[in-house]
Amino acid sequence: MTSAAFDVLGIGNAIVDILSHTDDAFLSQHGLIKGSMMLIDEERAETLYAVTGPGVEVSGGSCGNTMAGIASFGGTGAYIGKVRNDQLGEVFRHDLKATGVSFETASATSGPATARCLILVTPDGQRTMNTYLGACTGLGPVDIDTKVVGAARVTYVEGYLWDAPEAKKAVLKAFDAAHQAGRLVSITLSDSFCVHRYREEFRDLIRNRVDILFGNEAEIKALYEVETFEEAMEATRKEAKIAALTRSEKGSIVIKGSETYAVAAAPVAKVVDTTGAGDLYASGFLFGYTHGKPLAECARLGGIAAAEIISHIGARPEQALRGLV
Amino acid sequence: MTSAAFDVLGIGNAIVDILSHTDDAFLSQHGLIKGSMMLIDEERAETLYAVTGPGVEVSGGSCGNTMAGIASFGGTGAYIGKVRNDQLGEVFRHDLKATGVSFETASATSGPATARCLILVTPDGQRTMNTYLGACTGLGPVDIDTKVVGAARVTYVEGYLWDAPEAKKAVLKAFDAAHQAGRLVSITLSDSFCVHRYREEFRDLIRNRVDILFGNEAEIKALYEVETFEEAMEATRKEAKIAALTRSEKGSIVIKGSETYAVAAAPVAKVVDTTGAGDLYASGFLFGYTHGKPLAECARLGGIAAAEIISHIGARPEQALRGLV
Repeated sequence: MTSAAFDVLGIGNAIVDILSHTDDAFLSQHGLIKGSMMLIDEERAETLYAVTGPGVEVSGGSCGNTMAGIASFGGTGAYIGKVRNDQLGEVFRHDLKATGVSFETASATSGPATARCLILVTPDGQRTMNTYLGACTGLGPVDIDTKVVGAARVTYVEGYLWDAPEAKKAVLKAFDAAHQAGRLVSITLSDSFCVHRYREEFRDLIRNRVDILFGNEAEIKALYEVETFEEAMEATRKEAKIAALTRSEKGSIVIKGSETYAVAAAPVAKVVDTTGAGDLYASGFLFGYTHGKPLAECARLGGIAAAEIISHIGARPEQALRGLV
Repeated sequence: MTSAAFDVLGIGNAIVDILSHTDDAFLSQHGLIKGSMMLIDEERAETLYAVTGPGVEVSGGSCGNTMAGIASFGGTGAYIGKVRNDQLGEVFRHDLKATGVSFETASATSGPATARCLILVTPDGQRTMNTYLGACTGLGPVDIDTKVVGAARVTYVEGYLWDAPEAKKAVLKAFDAAHQAGRLVSITLSDSFCVHRYREEFRDLIRNRVDILFGNEAEIKALYEVETFEEAMEATRKEAKIAALTRSEKGSIVIKGSETYAVAAAPVAKVVDTTGAGDLYASGFLFGYTHGKPLAECARLGGIAAAEIISHIGARPEQALRGLV
C-alpha cells in the first residue's frame, strides 16, 4: 500500500459509557430488549439512570473502541467525533488521545451534553445499551478534514452515525474524499435495529461505495431479510467487495467474491461483558488489513481482540493487544 | 442502643475517582510518593491527567466508600458532602443514592468543579492518589443538618476533611450535635501525611471527643511519632476510647482500655487494587458496632469488607457484603 500517516481514520459517535450490573427482571420491567441498542432522549436517560444501580464510567462509542484497539495493536489512527466541552467530553478526549489516537475535532461549546450510553450488563455477560446521543448530533460535514481522510489507508465508520442526519452527510463527504485520494472505506452495520432503520441506504452503500463491510450474524440477516446465515452469506457475496461477518463463539467468516475464509473464535476463559466485541474485532481486522496481512490472518487478529474485550468489564482493551498476537 | 433512623452518618470529601494503571517509573518521573494521598490544584490536576493513560471513572471519596459499604452490609446510612451541579457531581450523587444511602446535601451551583482523585495503580496493587478538592472546599457548617446527626447512631468523619477549613468547622458542629443527642462520633486518620498536617488537633479530638478511632499502622505511628506499632498501641490505649487499627495482611487490632483484640486478615486470592481497603474496613466495623456485635466480630466484618475491595479495581463493593458474612 502507498504510505499513509494513519492506518485507519475512524468516524463515530463519541460516547462515554456508564456500565452497571443488572438482571433480566430489570430489563423486562423497563421494556428493554437484551443485546440491543436503543436511542433515548435526555428525559428518558435521566429517568433510567435514576433507577439504575451504581455505575462505572468509561470512554466508549463503537468506533472509539475500535480506534483504541488499533492503537493497542501498535497501529496509527485518527478519530473524528463530537463531544461537548463538559467533564465527560474531557474524559472521552483524554482517554482516546492517551491511547495515541489523533483526535482534533473541535468540542461543541453549546447545545446538548456529551453523549452517554447506559449499558446494563446481565449475569450472562450480555449488554443492553441505551444511548443518549447529545452532542453527537452536532457532528457535520464541517468536521471532516479531507486532508486527514486522504492521509488514512482506510476510513472506517459506524452505521450508528445514520441516527444523526448531519453525521451521515459527514460520512458521505469523507467517503468521497477517501476514494478521491485512492483510499478505502469501511463500515460496520452496528446493530440489527440500526439495520432495520437504514436498510436500503446501507445496501446501496455496500453495493456502490464500501470496500470492507463488518457485521454480525443478526445484522447481516436483517440487512438481507433472510432467515439463515447461509442465505445472508450468499447475498453478501453478491453485493459486498469484502465482508467480515462475526458469529460470537462460532468465530468469523470473511467473504471476498468467490473466496470464503472461516476462522474459529479465540478461546475465552469466562465471558464477563460482551460490550465492544464487534468493535474490537474490527480493530484487529483493520490493523491486519492495513499491514498487508491475508484475510484469514486479519480475521484471526479480530478474534484475538474480541476475546480480550469480552473477558472484562468495559469496551477498551486492558492488555496491549500487540502483546497477544 | 436507642432506636435511630440511621446506623451511620458519614461526612466526607465527595470525590469521583479516575483510576488508571501505571508503573513505578511514572510515579518517580512525576515526583509522586507511592501509597500516599497528595493534594493538587486544578492546574496540576490537568497537567497530570494529560500525561496519564486511559482511565475509568468511579465514585469514591474515603467516607463515600465507607457509606456504600455500610449499605452493602444491609445497614442504613446518610451522607453529607459537597459536589457541584456538574456531570461528575451527578455521577457521585447517583452512585451513592443507588446504594441506598440518603444524600441530601445541596450541590454547589457556582465555584470549583466536583472533586476528582487521580488514582494511579501500580502492578503491585498499591494506589497513589492525587486529589483536586474542588467543590469539597465549599462544605461548611450550614450543610450540617443536626436532625440527621441526631438520628444516626454514629457520626463518622474522615481526617481528610481538615484539608478544607470550613469542612472542619462542619465536623465540629456535627460532633457537638451528636454528643448532645447522646450519639457517638468516629474519625479515621485517613493518611499519614494528613496526620502530619493536623497531628495536634487530631490528638486533642481523640483524647476529648472521639468515641471510635480508625487508623492504619503508618497513620497511628505518625500520630504518636513513634517507631514501632507496639509503642503506637500503648499510646493509643492511653488516649483513645476505642481504636481499630489496621495492618494490611497482618489483620487488625482493636484496643479498648486494657482490652486488646487481634483479628487476622480475611484471605485474598490476588490483591488487584488496595484503594478503599481502610474505608471498607471501617464500614464493616461500624456496621457490626451499630448492630451490637462484640469488638472482635466488628473487626472480622471489617476484614471481610476490606478483602472484597482489594480483590478488584475500584473502592466500592462489587459483591453485596451481606452475602459474604
